[in-house]
This record gives sequence, C-alpha cells and structure tokens, in this order.
Amino acid sequence: MNPTRLQFTVQHQDRQARAGQVELPRGSFETPIFMPVGTLATVKAMTPAELDQLGARIVLSNAYHLFLRPGQDVVQRCGGLHRFMGWPNLILTDSGGYQVFSLRSLMRIDDDGVEFRSHLDGSLHTLSPERVMAVQAALGSDIAMAFDHCPPSRADPRQVRDAMDRTTRWAQRCVEQPRPPHQVRFGIIQGGLDVELRMQHLETLTRLPFEGFALGGLSVGETPQQMHQVLEQVARHMPADRPRYLMGVGRAEDLLQAIGAGIDMFDCVMPTRNARNGQLFTETGRIVISNASMREDCRPPDPDCECATCQTYSRAYLSHLYRSREILYSRLATLHNLHFTIQLVRRAREAIIHGNYDEFCRAFLVRRNETG
Amino acid sequence: MNPTRLQFTVQHQDRQARAGQVELPRGSFETPIFMPVGTLATVKAMTPAELDQLGARIVLSNAYHLFLRPGQDVVQRCGGLHRFMGWPNLILTDSGGYQVFSLRSLMRIDDDGVEFRSHLDGSLHTLSPERVMAVQAALGSDIAMAFDHCPPSRADPRQVRDAMDRTTRWAQRCVEQPRPPHQVRFGIIQGGLDVELRMQHLETLTRLPFEGFALGGLSVGETPQQMHQVLEQVARHMPADRPRYLMGVGRAEDLLQAIGAGIDMFDCVMPTRNARNGQLFTETGRIVISNASMREDCRPPDPDCECATCQTYSRAYLSHLYRSREILYSRLATLHNLHFTIQLVRRAREAIIHGNYDEFCRAFLVRRNETG
Repeated sequence: MNPTRLQFTVQHQDRQARAGQVELPRGSFETPIFMPVGTLATVKAMTPAELDQLGARIVLSNAYHLFLRPGQDVVQRCGGLHRFMGWPNLILTDSGGYQVFSLRSLMRIDDDGVEFRSHLDGSLHTLSPERVMAVQAALGSDIAMAFDHCPPSRADPRQVRDAMDRTTRWAQRCVEQPRPPHQVRFGIIQGGLDVELRMQHLETLTRLPFEGFALGGLSVGETPQQMHQVLEQVARHMPADRPRYLMGVGRAEDLLQAIGAGIDMFDCVMPTRNARNGQLFTETGRIVISNASMREDCRPPDPDCECATCQTYSRAYLSHLYRSREILYSRLATLHNLHFTIQLVRRAREAIIHGNYDEFCRAFLVRRNETG
Repeated sequence: MNPTRLQFTVQHQDRQARAGQVELPRGSFETPIFMPVGTLATVKAMTPAELDQLGARIVLSNAYHLFLRPGQDVVQRCGGLHRFMGWPNLILTDSGGYQVFSLRSLMRIDDDGVEFRSHLDGSLHTLSPERVMAVQAALGSDIAMAFDHCPPSRADPRQVRDAMDRTTRWAQRCVEQPRPPHQVRFGIIQGGLDVELRMQHLETLTRLPFEGFALGGLSVGETPQQMHQVLEQVARHMPADRPRYLMGVGRAEDLLQAIGAGIDMFDCVMPTRNARNGQLFTETGRIVISNASMREDCRPPDPDCECATCQTYSRAYLSHLYRSREILYSRLATLHNLHFTIQLVRRAREAIIHGNYDEFCRAFLVRRNETG
C-alpha cells in the first residue's frame, strides 16, 4: 500500500459509528457517504451539475458495463471517465464481478477468469483480474475495486467458500497490476452470511495492500436481519484506519444500521431506480405516485423536504407526469430520492459528531413506525 | 378587442420582416420568437429553469391534451397552469382543433362541436368552441387559441372551404366567451394552400376582436415551396399592428422564410422530438448521433455551439448515452436543439434590427449548402 494515495481520518466516533474524511489525490469526501450509482457513466436522469448540487462527492460506475459499451479505449481517448461524463468530483468503479456472476450469461469460470456472453449482443468476452484492473486503469477512476467472485445468493457453503478463495487468489493478482498514479484499490470481502468465513476472508484480504475494504455479497436476497447480524459482527473488525464500504445498500433503515456498525461508504441503485418506478422516499415512508389519491393532491410530494422538486411541484403534477410517461417525472423523482438519501447520511454524520447517533436512529425509526 | 391586454410594437422592419415586442398583462417577449412545445404541461425532458436559461419566454401547451389528462379542474385547483408546471414566464395554449382532427378518433362533427374518443382510454368526449375556451380559461394561459376546424392535409376544395367556414362560425362564438383578465385570444386562419381562400378567411376573421392571428393548417404535409408561396402572399396582409403566428413550423429554412414573409411567432415539436430521435441541429446540417462514426468521435456535437451540451460533452458520450437509451441523452440533445432554434430566431431578430436580414438568410443558406 502506498500510504500517500489515500488518507483516512476518523474525526469522531460514537460507539462503532464513525465520522471521517477520505483524502485522495484528486479530491476528498466526508464519511459516512452515499455514492449515487452511474453504471453506464451517467447517474440515470441526472446531470453532473445536479449531482454536485445535491452534495454528491463521489459516484459509482461499472467497469464491466463500460468495457462492453462504449469500451474503455473510447473513454480513455476522450480524456478518461471524469471528462467523458463531465463529472468534476470522484469516481469509484466497481469491477463487474457482481455483474458477471449475476447476469446469467456466464459460460466458463476458472482461476484464469471468466468467459461470458455480452448481455447486449451475445458476443463472447473474457475478463480476468488483470484485464479488469486494466479496464479500470484506462477509465481512470479514483477508486478501483478488485475483481471478485460473487456467489449466488442461495449458494451452498462449499460454493461460498470456493468463491471466497478464488476472490483471494484474484485479489493477489489485482494488487500486482499497474495503475494510474491517482488510483487506489479496494479489496472485496466475501463469505456469504457465515460470520466465521467472513472473518477468515477479512483476515486474509487485509494482508494485501488495499487502500480500503468492501463487504460484497450482501443485500443480495437475504433478510435485513441476516445482513445486520453479519454487519454487527464483521464491520468493527475491518481495518479501522481505512474506509469500510458496504456494497449495494441504500435502504434508509439499512444505512442507519450499517453506519452504526462502523461502515463508512455506500452505493445503491434503489434511490434512482425506485424513483423512476414511482416511489418517492420520505421520513415517514414511501409515496407511491401512481396511487389514485395523488391525482388531485396539490401538496408537495414531501412537505418537509427542501429539494427543488418538493419546493416547486405538487403530487398532482408528478402524478400527471408519471401517468404521461414524461421524462421530467424521472428527473424530479430521482432528484428527490437522491436528496433524501444523501441528506439522511449527512445527518447521520452530524449525529455521530454530536455523539447522539443512537438517539438519531431511534427518532428516525419512531417517526417512520408512527406514520408508516 | 380590449386594446390594453396586448400591446404590440414593431420596433424595426426590414422589407416584410419585423422585429417587435409583445406586452401582455403577465409578461412580455420580443419577436420574432420561437415557442418550445410543452403539450402535456412539460417541454419534454426540460425543466422550466433550463428553458428560461435557454431564453424561452413563452411555451406552448395544449388544451385538448390537458382536458383529457389531468383535466383542467386539477390544474386550476393547483393554482393554474403556470404554477402547476412551475413556469414563471408566459404560456400559449393551443385549442386542440388540430389534435381533435388529426388523432383519427373523431366520431361526429357539426356546428355544435365535435364528439371524439380519447386516445388514452377510448372514453367519449365532446368539445365545442364554448367548452374549449372554458378549458383554456381554467388553465389560465396568457394566449388562448380559438377552436378551429383543421381540414386534412389532402382535403378537396369543398372540404377546405367547409372547414374554413365552420372555423369562422366557431371563432365568433369563441370571442364571446368569458376569460380571465390576463388572457388574450388569437384567431386561426384556415384556407389550405388556396391563396384566395386564405385571403377571404383573413378578411373575415380580422373583423373579430382577436388580439392576434395565426396561420393554421400549414406544415401538414405540403412541400416547403407550397407553404412558402402561401406565406409570401398572405402574411403581409395579416394585421400589421398585431402579432402574426405561424403554427407548427420550426425547420430552420422555414423559420427564416416565414420571418422574411412577416411572421412573428412560431412553435414546433421538431427541435425537441428530433433531439430524442437522435438528430442534433447545426448550422451546417444535422448530426445523426446513431451513425457509427460518432462512437469514437471525441469532438463536441457542434464545435461552434455555446450550449451547455456542446461545451461539456463529446459526440462519443452522446452516442454512448443514445445507444444505452439513457435519459440524459434526451436531456442533452433537447437542450442543444432548443438552443439552436431559439438562437437562430434571436439572430434573425438582430439581423432585422441591423437592416441586413436578406444577407443573414443568404449567408445561412450558403453555409448549409456548402457543407450539407
């Protein structure tokens, strides 16, 4: 590990919950943080300027998807991913391990890597740890994720262990690859819901020179309780001096739980995807914009919300746009849900700094249960 | 006519071309002007703030569409159309005559009005001149269009004359309807491609107390030359002291031709619709973003354009977004095409003010033909 590439400072700690700061060669961000997902080099329906204004400091993009289209060479020729998508802040690229194993187009897998068919046109491709790190190097992301083998959510113990061991062997090859001077690498801890396996993998992976560590293979179909149990027992043992990233989690209750367990970073498609599907998040639950009651409701979506959508438009207007399949609906709903999620995590940070994180979580859950 | 509701000043005239100013109770705009189309109370893919920044001062919405969904009562209860869609500037509502007659769901038509089936759910509705003006009064638009009978583009002379005569009888009823204190009404001149009929209808309609007049039933399938002939011979005879509006025209060459013939106002779905369909307008012709050559082209869409899209993004990025069906593509392309069209009309205005409109048009056409 090159210690100058990533500086992580824990500024406040409240039990296991941490408020920190991550400094990278091309920018910094405060933690805990939520990273909006821009799989295809765009956070769906949003511009970079809007994301920046929402307070987003780092977005997630996906090496697997960009490898298939438009191809990392095009992105590199156009000046790298930041310039390609016009994003002035930081980018984390997921390696695509999760995608390769979940898109059901897998043809062959061994230690060399994976052979799969493109979900776009059926063409045959191979990805290996070396190739995936080269893709991320070409994209020029700030944080590159190691290539992991993410087992199916209902995998048996042997499959989980095999995937974990392969992830370890691949991780060793990932950290040996060349990378741009501004790029750091995070390892991905697997092990399913088995805390003992998780701890084993954590111990193994943390011997490798990664600048940060992620928990992969969670929020893939297990119950929230199952995930929380793993988090409670594992997160606190992840290296305290490096950022801890829980992949694919964005539900409000899960975010608060995970932050309480010591997680620093999150990404999730839920705020953006659910927005497009007609769900608006509020403190007291979800508004379903397709409900008949919304059609003549002139109130703001969330009267307590300060986002541009709630400050300007009515439920009736959003309902009209949604029913009419207007693009503006997706824009306004996405803006609102990202505002909600980013602000929730920011307020969690403030509560940690003020030493009242448990109280903050309790108050949030009470409000939600009273009205939901 | 209430002369205080609309003040029109011709500031400069260059042959038939006019640079003017329209003052209405709730705002003003300079002419010639292009009005972006927001049929369903949204200019597709754009926010009001973006439209305002592009220089849009008035948008067009559609009474027929809003009558069917969400219903003018909902809009009125939420504070009127301006507030409903969050648009601080002016709104012109088309009456829906064109839509009723073009959507092929027409059941019955006589002097009372029309009976038709909704294109949304097949439900039966009737619209009359009285009803249409009441819808526009409830919406609270700044300019309400009279309810006209727009004949099919291939109508025979008798059909054209019948539609024209009915439009006259309807226009007489439209001007007798109540309206909000800030609303003005424009009459629609029909008559197809027959200049004599057009002149007859112009003479008849201009006896009614409309604050402005429009040419309807053009750009509906005839050749540009046919339309230009009608414009050249008819536009100059429309009342010089009121705005002249050519409905449904937005192609660059047609705009310049019509401005030269003395038209002041335009609307068209083309800039927005073609954007979504992959066409970007430039001075030298259209960029087709689906072309294979765009995939690796790191240049801006239009290197000479000052819009936010061309200042920030590459053809390769737009090509990637288009192929990936990302919403951001529609946003960026729409922004560009509206910028192009609004700026073209604004530059036409400047040329009129400087007395070199013919030269401006010639230079535009030469550039286009050299490279197109």
